[in-house]
Amino acid sequence: MKKQQGALLTSIKIDRSARKKIGVQLYMGLRDIILTGGLMAGDRLPATRTLAKEIQVSRTTVIDAIDRLVAEGLLESRVGAGTYVSEILENQRPVTPNVDTAQFTETRPRLAHNLTHATETYAPRSWLPHTTGAFVTALPALDAFPMAHWARLSARHLRGSRDDIMGYGQPKGLLQLRNAIATHLNASRGIRCHSEQIFITAGAQQAFSLIGSVLLNAGDQVWYENPGAAGARNAFLSRGAQMVPINVDKDGLIVSQGVQKSPHFRLAFVTPSHQQPLGHVMSLARRLELLDAANTAQAMIVEDDYDGDFYFGGQPHPPLKSIDTQSRVIYVGTFSKTLFPSLRLGFMLVPDGLIDTFDHLFASWISTAPTSVQSIVADFMDEGHFATHIRMMRRLYSARYDAMIDASKHMPDSFTLGETKSGFHTMGYLNKNADEQNLVRAAGENGVIVAPLNRYCLTPIAQKGLVLGFGSSTPEQINAGMKTLAKLVRHKI
Amino acid sequence: MKKQQGALLTSIKIDRSARKKIGVQLYMGLRDIILTGGLMAGDRLPATRTLAKEIQVSRTTVIDAIDRLVAEGLLESRVGAGTYVSEILENQRPVTPNVDTAQFTETRPRLAHNLTHATETYAPRSWLPHTTGAFVTALPALDAFPMAHWARLSARHLRGSRDDIMGYGQPKGLLQLRNAIATHLNASRGIRCHSEQIFITAGAQQAFSLIGSVLLNAGDQVWYENPGAAGARNAFLSRGAQMVPINVDKDGLIVSQGVQKSPHFRLAFVTPSHQQPLGHVMSLARRLELLDAANTAQAMIVEDDYDGDFYFGGQPHPPLKSIDTQSRVIYVGTFSKTLFPSLRLGFMLVPDGLIDTFDHLFASWISTAPTSVQSIVADFMDEGHFATHIRMMRRLYSARYDAMIDASKHMPDSFTLGETKSGFHTMGYLNKNADEQNLVRAAGENGVIVAPLNRYCLTPIAQKGLVLGFGSSTPEQINAGMKTLAKLVRHKI
Repeated sequence: MKKQQGALLTSIKIDRSARKKIGVQLYMGLRDIILTGGLMAGDRLPATRTLAKEIQVSRTTVIDAIDRLVAEGLLESRVGAGTYVSEILENQRPVTPNVDTAQFTETRPRLAHNLTHATETYAPRSWLPHTTGAFVTALPALDAFPMAHWARLSARHLRGSRDDIMGYGQPKGLLQLRNAIATHLNASRGIRCHSEQIFITAGAQQAFSLIGSVLLNAGDQVWYENPGAAGARNAFLSRGAQMVPINVDKDGLIVSQGVQKSPHFRLAFVTPSHQQPLGHVMSLARRLELLDAANTAQAMIVEDDYDGDFYFGGQPHPPLKSIDTQSRVIYVGTFSKTLFPSLRLGFMLVPDGLIDTFDHLFASWISTAPTSVQSIVADFMDEGHFATHIRMMRRLYSARYDAMIDASKHMPDSFTLGETKSGFHTMGYLNKNADEQNLVRAAGENGVIVAPLNRYCLTPIAQKGLVLGFGSSTPEQINAGMKTLAKLVRHKI
Repeated sequence: MKKQQGALLTSIKIDRSARKKIGVQLYMGLRDIILTGGLMAGDRLPATRTLAKEIQVSRTTVIDAIDRLVAEGLLESRVGAGTYVSEILENQRPVTPNVDTAQFTETRPRLAHNLTHATETYAPRSWLPHTTGAFVTALPALDAFPMAHWARLSARHLRGSRDDIMGYGQPKGLLQLRNAIATHLNASRGIRCHSEQIFITAGAQQAFSLIGSVLLNAGDQVWYENPGAAGARNAFLSRGAQMVPINVDKDGLIVSQGVQKSPHFRLAFVTPSHQQPLGHVMSLARRLELLDAANTAQAMIVEDDYDGDFYFGGQPHPPLKSIDTQSRVIYVGTFSKTLFPSLRLGFMLVPDGLIDTFDHLFASWISTAPTSVQSIVADFMDEGHFATHIRMMRRLYSARYDAMIDASKHMPDSFTLGETKSGFHTMGYLNKNADEQNLVRAAGENGVIVAPLNRYCLTPIAQKGLVLGFGSSTPEQINAGMKTLAKLVRHKI
């Protein structure tokens, strides 16, 4: 007994510089010793006076900690006889604390396994951009956002009815926002739709995951652009889908190749407005061919229209969804590009025949988008700020693309700037013997962020290149960045 | 040809009272006719002048609509020869528009099927509370929230660095918030943890879904309290888990029954601080027994501590996680009760051995909680408002529970108010022959919202009762509500 009491006293470490209160440290230290078998059921604790002296804390602190453990049932006070470890702990075997949960990582369920495989194979975790500048992809012009309007709408939201702003919202999203999105899609994108078809999601990424979980069984074949977007790929892979890489040319996804490789596909994922990452616009003929193929296979199509609002050519091309007479297309939009990424807000537009299924999904899931974010975005749209912002950003991105063309004069002949008329990224094509990885690394060391084309590939392609974002870069940054790149490409790094 | 032109002209409906511009209506009307085969490849359009006259719109409007369709490639202009439907459409078969996607709902993938089954069988969609008052469950005291502090923090957030407040955040959540939560759990709940173990989720519900997707394969057995929480149930059911209902007594989940019914369980879901919905606190002996059973079966435990911060008895009971020496427990918390539901913010604390797996999941998923919400909550915690609010709410809910006891004097003897020392709901036990459904309906018609106990059951239990929330009700509302209930119970409705 004496020995155990001695062991107890010295093994409690009190860190006087820690933020955690000494009393809490003592309580947790005592508790851990009891739970891990350092003191056994029936063992008597030293007198509080002794404990206080040896640990060098006040007696009140010791008494408080012991009282708490008595209240919790781990210790028992016997009147006039001191404090004992509770008999409840009789059957507790001393165990090694913090045993690893290895069996869960070794015999992973399929989803965890698929996910780990997907992220390890294709998409390193360092991916998401978090600083602006040349040539970061996927970030819009944060500096040009009308933050004053936004702050005003945000403050107004907080002055609303408490039930509305604080309570549980509608599972599929705020009706005001769904109406605003339906109006925008009808007016600006030529998509006939109504608000019941619209489901608010936490960004496009969540939409892809939810679509995958509703439409895909393990082993189902998914046509996927190669190269193509990374986020949706992981979402479908995590469902155990079999990804079928389909090549892309100037007209978009080569549908005939898909029909040949995988006639019984279940889903096709495409970015028709602005192929991610190559930047091509899918031709009308190809769009009709894809719709026809989906109809024949009774498959669905996911249209990711991530930056279709930013077409700065002439007349924008109509979304696939707008010519989808057979209800084969689920249209996915995001506010990450039109507003900003930290909103984590997107939406999907599903055919009438699938509304019920997604309603069930969302009823079980509960909407994941905070009401504040939905409400502010809805007001932003209803009051016309959204349309104004889109128009201004179209001009800005067009000007920044012109700066890209201008700055590309620094580049050697082995480099070709890709053409684009939409969004805020384009390709920088390289010679077939270029070393993308090395170039990306060397550019990074010189403060220029570029993404290698192969990061977007399911299977390797011959073409070498860099994906260059220009949304969040000033013309000066673009010019300086291109000079840096030029030096590296010229020296064949 | 003449005939087709006639058909075209009359089938376009222009609604002059609609919000949609007439030009857009005309464009969409023409487009739909072309796509659905009302006009075939090579067909010639009437002269713009003729069209304008017959549809009674200006010629400019007609020209604009046709120009757009030419730009999109659906029409072709031949100089001096008029406008024709594009040859691209040659292979388009006339199809019936808006075909139903029946094959997707008939041959549903497992997840969609499970979800539909789960929500249809157990949890109707009308469930989520959205108005305050007697006796709405799951809603905290919205009226007592320090909205002025909140608004100030919100405004300050919007004055921060644009990269920080607008860019992509960390996949597992804002570090500042994860630190604040770890500090709170260490200091207030006695849980030793660090911020890498914490993953920010869009409410507890998303945490349950993600846990299910990582740990469960179809057919895995899950111990589930009967009666028990509804949200987590749907999340696990949607993974195809086999739910094993385990009865609950005053000491919480009857572990011995679980061991007998399902010794090889994979997961146990419990609400030890405040059993949902019965309100019992799980005894220490039962907690140790559960940890032991999980260890033997190499299973994991999900601890849903949804209102453990609101213990208004004496010393709060320690969470299961705080005595989890074997890393068997995933602890799930929510801000829906401590702050408010529309935040859609929660978190989970996973054992060190599972951090990697969840990091992969979140890397693929991207954090779904907006930075603004995370940042404001983190400041709210760091500046002490959170602790102050919790302390005030503890007193408020204690007072509101006293009002419940006081008002229950109106009730007949066939009604017994359940005891509780935590949170903001309790039971109203009824005679075994009471008709819960009828009572719930009749109460609702009289403006009193109550939930039937059977809604929380996986398998029927003999006990009849109502779940009564008192978080968002004033003492006056509680008194009036109880009078209404008394009348209904007395008349055996």
